[in-house]
Amino acid sequence: MPHINLPSEFPGIRSLFMFRPETAAPLNALVQTLLHNPHPSLTAGERELIATYVSGLNNCKYCCNIHGAIAQHQLGNNAQIVKQVLANPYTAPISQKMKSLLKIAAKVQSGGKNVTNQDIVNAGEEGATDIEIQDTVLIAAAFCMFNRYVDGLATWQPDDAELYDKMGEQRAREGYLTAPFKVNREPEDL
Amino acid sequence: MPHINLPSEFPGIRSLFMFRPETAAPLNALVQTLLHNPHPSLTAGERELIATYVSGLNNCKYCCNIHGAIAQHQLGNNAQIVKQVLANPYTAPISQKMKSLLKIAAKVQSGGKNVTNQDIVNAGEEGATDIEIQDTVLIAAAFCMFNRYVDGLATWQPDDAELYDKMGEQRAREGYLTAPFKVNREPEDL
Repeated sequence: MPHINLPSEFPGIRSLFMFRPETAAPLNALVQTLLHNPHPSLTAGERELIATYVSGLNNCKYCCNIHGAIAQHQLGNNAQIVKQVLANPYTAPISQKMKSLLKIAAKVQSGGKNVTNQDIVNAGEEGATDIEIQDTVLIAAAFCMFNRYVDGLATWQPDDAELYDKMGEQRAREGYLTAPFKVNREPEDL
Repeated sequence: MPHINLPSEFPGIRSLFMFRPETAAPLNALVQTLLHNPHPSLTAGERELIATYVSGLNNCKYCCNIHGAIAQHQLGNNAQIVKQVLANPYTAPISQKMKSLLKIAAKVQSGGKNVTNQDIVNAGEEGATDIEIQDTVLIAAAFCMFNRYVDGLATWQPDDAELYDKMGEQRAREGYLTAPFKVNREPEDL
């Protein structure tokens, strides 16, 4: 049960956005800009993979499942690549540049000071630009916020894989600024 | 030296905001809403104390110094209270409600799942409302993002206490949406 009185028909961060629309507006704008809007060089699927990977490291079920589903739909409905990145990004079928960016993301997750100059040099050698490095650090940092927000208030995080798939398909298509997915829950679920 | 090519006349997060204005806009709007705009019950000084305390736990020099300076100016130029909260919030001259909220903030900093139902019950018994608890969790989570962003890209974080005091006085008075403080640096500093 959530730690505070949240609307029960919305899962995860969506229940918090309904509870506190004042802070929902800039948070939604942030994730829309970081993950969905056109980017100079990273695809939406690549950016969603970074968000999914960091949410996995933070063990946040809701964020890992929903961003994993969005990544899957952004990557041509490729569920396998998401699973492989979550299991081990260094053996997943992604570019060397993406591997070097995910390494930086993991360092950020454990603490900003853990990113070394060598991590940055390695990413540059794999072709990463300054904007790609800055956005990777900010996506990883932002999901250290979103994951703590969702878990810190003990929001409802469904187990239903089909629900995440439906929500993920909608977000991949529409972005983050459209109406949230409402779930009809049985009274005994509440 | 920063990990990427940032404008050298701006310290900390301000150099990142100048580098990437697309993400600066929602981040600035978030901090303006969370910390500066009128709140149903928490003062700006109380909210800045939460941000300062979490930045101290994350050992982020720039954020801890600048938000400490803003808190000081929001609290009637009281530097002592900021120092005491950073040293030990439980013996600082703040309300029992603020102590219970800072306890929740520290749990969020270490990981969202660490917040217990008892922490929430305790805060409620000290008079904390659902909105105060939600905003405390989000401020703590947001500074886990800002601290990682500032440190993860190795931004310039000055040692000059007078500079933080000047910047803090400006932010306390104007909020977060006005022009940043430009610093004239000697070439040997760069």
